[in-house]
Amino acid sequence: MDNLGEIKKNLEREGAEGFLVTNEINIRYISGFTGSDSVLLLTPGNDYLFTDFRYVEQAQQDNPKIKIVEKKTSLLNSICEKIKKLKIKKLLVESFYISIDQFNEIKQKVNNIHMIATKGIIENYRKQKTKDELKKIQKAIEIAEKAYASIQNKIKYGVTEKDIADILEYELRILGAEKSSFDIICAVGKHASKPHAHPATTRVQRGDTVLIDWGSRFQYYNSDLTRLKTMDKISSKFRKIYQIVLDAQSLAIDCIRPGIKAKKIDAVARNYIKKKGFGEFFGHGLGHGIGQEVHEGPYINKKNNEILKEGMVFTVEPGIYIPEWGGVRIEDLVLVTQTGCEVLSKLPKKLSDININ
Amino acid sequence: MDNLGEIKKNLEREGAEGFLVTNEINIRYISGFTGSDSVLLLTPGNDYLFTDFRYVEQAQQDNPKIKIVEKKTSLLNSICEKIKKLKIKKLLVESFYISIDQFNEIKQKVNNIHMIATKGIIENYRKQKTKDELKKIQKAIEIAEKAYASIQNKIKYGVTEKDIADILEYELRILGAEKSSFDIICAVGKHASKPHAHPATTRVQRGDTVLIDWGSRFQYYNSDLTRLKTMDKISSKFRKIYQIVLDAQSLAIDCIRPGIKAKKIDAVARNYIKKKGFGEFFGHGLGHGIGQEVHEGPYINKKNNEILKEGMVFTVEPGIYIPEWGGVRIEDLVLVTQTGCEVLSKLPKKLSDININ
Repeated sequence: MDNLGEIKKNLEREGAEGFLVTNEINIRYISGFTGSDSVLLLTPGNDYLFTDFRYVEQAQQDNPKIKIVEKKTSLLNSICEKIKKLKIKKLLVESFYISIDQFNEIKQKVNNIHMIATKGIIENYRKQKTKDELKKIQKAIEIAEKAYASIQNKIKYGVTEKDIADILEYELRILGAEKSSFDIICAVGKHASKPHAHPATTRVQRGDTVLIDWGSRFQYYNSDLTRLKTMDKISSKFRKIYQIVLDAQSLAIDCIRPGIKAKKIDAVARNYIKKKGFGEFFGHGLGHGIGQEVHEGPYINKKNNEILKEGMVFTVEPGIYIPEWGGVRIEDLVLVTQTGCEVLSKLPKKLSDININ
Repeated sequence: MDNLGEIKKNLEREGAEGFLVTNEINIRYISGFTGSDSVLLLTPGNDYLFTDFRYVEQAQQDNPKIKIVEKKTSLLNSICEKIKKLKIKKLLVESFYISIDQFNEIKQKVNNIHMIATKGIIENYRKQKTKDELKKIQKAIEIAEKAYASIQNKIKYGVTEKDIADILEYELRILGAEKSSFDIICAVGKHASKPHAHPATTRVQRGDTVLIDWGSRFQYYNSDLTRLKTMDKISSKFRKIYQIVLDAQSLAIDCIRPGIKAKKIDAVARNYIKKKGFGEFFGHGLGHGIGQEVHEGPYINKKNNEILKEGMVFTVEPGIYIPEWGGVRIEDLVLVTQTGCEVLSKLPKKLSDININ
């Protein structure tokens, strides 16, 4: 991993001899290991992956440099033994991802261990994508877009939300995705008022809107997009709201560049929607970073003071959700470039583009 | 939830006024809430679900009795405010599922709070299935079996592991599953030596074995099965190993009844495989409980002293994995009955049943 050297500098900085990585995605980011139920210990010298019988062969193939430790009685026992053997006195841990139980067990089993609860060390490096990561994200977008295009003739009167989600999932996979990035959301009509609706048995009818929020995972990197389809006759209320969301997204995207605060981008979209009278119906943040995790930093919301940097990739997804009426969300992926941003996703989204007759 | 009253008795037992449930599946088990990123607070009176804008409408539909608290600044802030308002002094927390960060923040924000790190309170209730839960598991098995049967003609020379996994995933869904219980494992030939291999581009050829480990999720309940197919000409070594695994499974199943220790069941299969000379190649536990989680208690392994009880449902899945050669695993689901056990999964598995000519 490109950033391993940088990440290990945190050991020196904190005067620690070990960094216990318990978050599965951070483990994969650093080591390339693609299994689960494992823990990584970084030290100034060797790095150790604690895993079980199921993953020993795979772990060595995923990363020939790493020392694999197969657990005997329990993962934590093996870890504690190694900490003692290496005479680690000060250990960095990931405070979001180490449980009270793991923390207490290490404290109990390793005399005089001093654990430092760190926050987001590896997550911070993950925000700015390398060229190789960017290529995988772009491929994940390309697959998602092709799959969406290929199921357009399946979005028709009489099919259910779940029918659409199931066929889209299959198309993503046969086009090369490992799987969906997340459970596909397909919400017909008023179901779309729930931003995270589960696809159900509701059937598409004339006059409905169909909101689809989907993405594909390619070599562990994700995409995340949302588009709506309108089924013939659409209300003027829908047209009005759709255009507001589209304009809010466009205004926000226009402001994205290195050096600007995340919350400033959120404010641009939020203030526009507010000005148009729908402020109370846009309850979530404007966007989120994406990579090996579907939701990761930088978070584009009203609180985040973080300054955007070149190489960050995130969603821009304003929405208006009205209970018992429905919802509109439009979501694209952008890359912060040296001077501004590039919209990575290309599917059409003008009102005139989204109607199915 | 049937067990809510029982679970709340733990409050009285521990002299606590609140139980903070942070594990997503425990939250769903108790409250019926089907979203994510939320926390449940049980008290002797009302129960509170702390969630965000995306899930407010859904949460109320999922459980009209529960009090929904929409987070303002952060989930933990809202929780701490409520703890203070309810004057909770002693709070049960889930030690496996509360992070050091959450623990410390509550401690810091709520003066004199005493948190008790509990282990597996709700998980213990989850082990014995109610009739309603059992019905859902049986449906999840039925869908998995039908889907497997329906793709038999797709397992043929030239197709890849991923082709098989993708079509099986689609069949599960169109037969009524929400999705796969876990990423389907499809391992051709020597790939099966890794118990958790990822489906890749390897193509099925004459003389290959094809191991498939799959399951379906139905109304949040899971199934988990493993079968092998043999492609025409099969080595005598494979026949021998397959029969050993099949016999080990059968011997273990014969011992399952209420009152016996989990580790005793594991020992029966393990000792048989050892006696036949393959002990070193069976590195994982014999089985695991299944329900809303694919892996949950009771764990059937060589360490677990737990006594089996009526209503428990778990896998029985002995295996022999030989690096550079391949692997055999046969996995079925059993229910502990009043006097013995019932094998819930029915797919044929005799050597003569599994060959594709």
